[in-house]
Amino acid sequence: MSERFNFRKYPAFKPVQMVNRTWPDKTITKAPLWCSVDLRDGNQALIEPMTPQQKLDLWDLLIKVGFKEIEIGFPSASSLDYDFCRKLIDEGRIPEDVTIQVLTQARPELIAKTFEALEGVRRAVVHLYNSTSTVQRDYVFGLDRQGIIKIAQEGAKMVADAAAQYPDTEWVFEYSPESFTGTELDFAVEVVDAVNAVWQPTPQSPVIVNLPATVEMSTPNVYADQIEWFCQHVQNRDSILVSVHTHNDRGCAVAASELAVLAGADRVEGTLFGNGERTGNMDILTMAMNMYSQGVDPMLDFEHMDEIIEVYKSATHLPVHPRHPYAGELVFTAFSGSHQDAIKKCLSRRDEDSIWEVAYLPIDPADIGRSYQEVIRINSQSGKGGIAYVLEQEYGYQLPRWLQIDFSPVVQKFAEESEKEVNPTTIKELFVSTYFPQERQYHLGDYKVNRTDGADSLSADLTTSTGAVHVEGTGNGVVAAFVNALETLTGSKIVVVEYSEHALSQSAEAEAVCYIQLNVDGERVCGVGQSEDIIQASLDGILRALSRSAVATKAAA
Amino acid sequence: MSERFNFRKYPAFKPVQMVNRTWPDKTITKAPLWCSVDLRDGNQALIEPMTPQQKLDLWDLLIKVGFKEIEIGFPSASSLDYDFCRKLIDEGRIPEDVTIQVLTQARPELIAKTFEALEGVRRAVVHLYNSTSTVQRDYVFGLDRQGIIKIAQEGAKMVADAAAQYPDTEWVFEYSPESFTGTELDFAVEVVDAVNAVWQPTPQSPVIVNLPATVEMSTPNVYADQIEWFCQHVQNRDSILVSVHTHNDRGCAVAASELAVLAGADRVEGTLFGNGERTGNMDILTMAMNMYSQGVDPMLDFEHMDEIIEVYKSATHLPVHPRHPYAGELVFTAFSGSHQDAIKKCLSRRDEDSIWEVAYLPIDPADIGRSYQEVIRINSQSGKGGIAYVLEQEYGYQLPRWLQIDFSPVVQKFAEESEKEVNPTTIKELFVSTYFPQERQYHLGDYKVNRTDGADSLSADLTTSTGAVHVEGTGNGVVAAFVNALETLTGSKIVVVEYSEHALSQSAEAEAVCYIQLNVDGERVCGVGQSEDIIQASLDGILRALSRSAVATKAAA
Repeated sequence: MSERFNFRKYPAFKPVQMVNRTWPDKTITKAPLWCSVDLRDGNQALIEPMTPQQKLDLWDLLIKVGFKEIEIGFPSASSLDYDFCRKLIDEGRIPEDVTIQVLTQARPELIAKTFEALEGVRRAVVHLYNSTSTVQRDYVFGLDRQGIIKIAQEGAKMVADAAAQYPDTEWVFEYSPESFTGTELDFAVEVVDAVNAVWQPTPQSPVIVNLPATVEMSTPNVYADQIEWFCQHVQNRDSILVSVHTHNDRGCAVAASELAVLAGADRVEGTLFGNGERTGNMDILTMAMNMYSQGVDPMLDFEHMDEIIEVYKSATHLPVHPRHPYAGELVFTAFSGSHQDAIKKCLSRRDEDSIWEVAYLPIDPADIGRSYQEVIRINSQSGKGGIAYVLEQEYGYQLPRWLQIDFSPVVQKFAEESEKEVNPTTIKELFVSTYFPQERQYHLGDYKVNRTDGADSLSADLTTSTGAVHVEGTGNGVVAAFVNALETLTGSKIVVVEYSEHALSQSAEAEAVCYIQLNVDGERVCGVGQSEDIIQASLDGILRALSRSAVATKAAA
Repeated sequence: MSERFNFRKYPAFKPVQMVNRTWPDKTITKAPLWCSVDLRDGNQALIEPMTPQQKLDLWDLLIKVGFKEIEIGFPSASSLDYDFCRKLIDEGRIPEDVTIQVLTQARPELIAKTFEALEGVRRAVVHLYNSTSTVQRDYVFGLDRQGIIKIAQEGAKMVADAAAQYPDTEWVFEYSPESFTGTELDFAVEVVDAVNAVWQPTPQSPVIVNLPATVEMSTPNVYADQIEWFCQHVQNRDSILVSVHTHNDRGCAVAASELAVLAGADRVEGTLFGNGERTGNMDILTMAMNMYSQGVDPMLDFEHMDEIIEVYKSATHLPVHPRHPYAGELVFTAFSGSHQDAIKKCLSRRDEDSIWEVAYLPIDPADIGRSYQEVIRINSQSGKGGIAYVLEQEYGYQLPRWLQIDFSPVVQKFAEESEKEVNPTTIKELFVSTYFPQERQYHLGDYKVNRTDGADSLSADLTTSTGAVHVEGTGNGVVAAFVNALETLTGSKIVVVEYSEHALSQSAEAEAVCYIQLNVDGERVCGVGQSEDIIQASLDGILRALSRSAVATKAAA
């Protein structure tokens, strides 16, 4: 190995000397208290921070998913966060059973500003932190243990004093020894005990003690040991809700939080899809769905997965990986023939009321509005990608992966039924008859698009077999506005799952082709539009997708 | 919750009754034997399977990274895999210290074909599998335990007999009770003992027993228990290399493999970036780098991370998530002011020879050809994304995230030095002076591009301050061919890390703008090209990026 790629410059992480380790014998039988930090830790790590509207959209989504505690920002450090906090309170947007949480450092002016931001709130968690690790003490603060304890205790006192000035609010205090994983365990206990000496929690009025893996530094079993050791040694254990907040530097944030719950943690902080600094926070969606898949009530609802993905992507501009557990586009696919055969046999022998026991499918995709996809790679032995290769080479269509997956069973079915070799012309014909069907429910007529103050409104005439209809909608962009109009028309919930377009190089008229996947009331359908005009191509693609859904079939009946 | 989203239909996974659990007290002190299954399990799960050339490129990469065992396919089930296997052997492409591995089911015609594919190889692992789980026995095969054992034993016998017919090859046998995680532990031991009764392994000539989490079904500590229980109860433990092969259905594949190594596993199968069926296989890159970051020699070399990403993406058409541990574009960034301050203090107090102790950075990014990025969001308080917003709204540039990150310190530095408010005109000027510098090393003159049989060749005239130069190169596409030409010219290794382009809507002449990030001998540099012609825009972007690298600076000196 080269001089640069040199493992010797890294020290080994010191394991915890455990005497009475109990967590490996436990199992997770109920959900922890969840706290979403999407709007704070997640937002903080975006190159383009969320706009107030995006924050509000994500807030609404988090409420819908079922979060009861949501960290909404760092109002004393950011005027945007301050304004958002005031907006939630002043506009009465916080449901009765939801508590907002805000972060603050242990400095007097920041704490004063924090309470100002929270004035008038029914209940709130004030989350105080300071760094406690050896590296931070030595290199950043130049303080010894006593100096760090002093910061924490003074901060705790300021928070308690400020809270006393707002007696109408139900206050909950949270303390984080930040960089806990880099802190000696006995010192972490000492700091927390010192803070609690100020706060004086009781079992009836507990504090939250959050133990962050600010940087993931060890295998997840060691983090679990740290949590169990801490729980064994901290004073007033019965007056503390032990919270964990893991990051994903070693790709094990979910595992670390799961083992920490076995080790005694009562509460888990994280984000949807693990957004957050660097490698991100713990992905609450995955951890909750892991419980779900084992018959444990996750106390969160991910039924509307496509909508969750849509709001998340729009707020963060981050992708969801095709292989992301439970959510990615490829996680309910089977490519191997033996997998497909096993799944088919399991599904055919299954009755509706029995427990779910299907090889290769940890959960029933239908639970979250998805379906199992059997992927057949026609002619894949040619090494040219089969269908996709033919459509691109012969006709210039560059099918995105999700459309290849959608289309492959159509070709397979034809091949099986006709017992014929599938040639390029047949593939093209099948593609056209599937995605450009002759009997479409709606045809696009005249339309108008207006952008005012960044919002688009659209009105359009559609013709159907039974006459003409006028639709109107609004949204961010022409696609969103049109979808909104169609939601009003059909009374359905429509989410744009996938959208992609390209110029059709084979076309002399420089046509654009547009591939759309919609989720219509929980059903995913694909459509294609093709036109010299990009708006026409997009809207046609949407209409063709919609016309292939059960909604359109029902309306036509 | 709705009727559809119903956790009650899932049974809880039964934990292992452990009496002498030792793994939680252990730590990983040396690398396991690694086996890459990128070319088999990874390739099997792609909608567009790798072409022979892509397979060969990935094979070369795996060798370069340092894998000594590589599963290359399922030659008896796929003629492509068969041909690839023959190609490696017939063209002498397998280094002395590397062993290829192939997968086969326990059927006579498949086993015969497998050995035919391997004829003449110096050493090979023949990997036999059959399904053993309760679900597969009951629903798929309709067989009892004895029936499953019979399949396994007969397969083992056929493999041993076939191997005896090719005495010039050094054969290694591997057996997988597929769907091990869904198999009763005592039965898994029984099957493996039965197979080994046929194979008769010895400590000098061990077999590989691979215990796959074909589907990840439990928290990773339970998988570790399964492995330790198995190791305690299987016969001939000293004649077995226990191998693990985890999948990522619960997002814990890396954790499961790490804990399994603590529990006694000698060998780990996985893929780069965790490619594989559904949620994917275990990500070997992450697990190896986790060891590296703790001072353990990973026995694999990820110094050339950008090149690894490039080959991976080109072979699989799958993205690497921006937050992927060690590799993602965002993992060495710091957005928060307090994080940046801490990192700065740690770095300034660090001397070259000391151990790495830097807050928020688990490893030195330079080890893998990356750099720490301090991201300052100028004007982010406006909620409009600051710099990126201005450049898009005022000038039509849609900067990709990685270029925003690259550009933000330039604006920050200017703001600090001038102590002035940064207005849109200044931002535009800084953008132009940074990415469209006046003194460029090379200017593009005439060029020719030829596509023959799918490969592009390019020849071009470049002018420099000291005269004219002619360059030639080949590659897949004009960008690859031009980069190849510049590699020849400069003697540098150049990788295209990022590429994105869009039409400049603000431009009356319908110009294209093209954003490029190169890795030039381990240094990442960005450049921008703008032209009415897309080829000119791309090549200009590449030249401008190159002109900002140390290579160009050195050449100019």
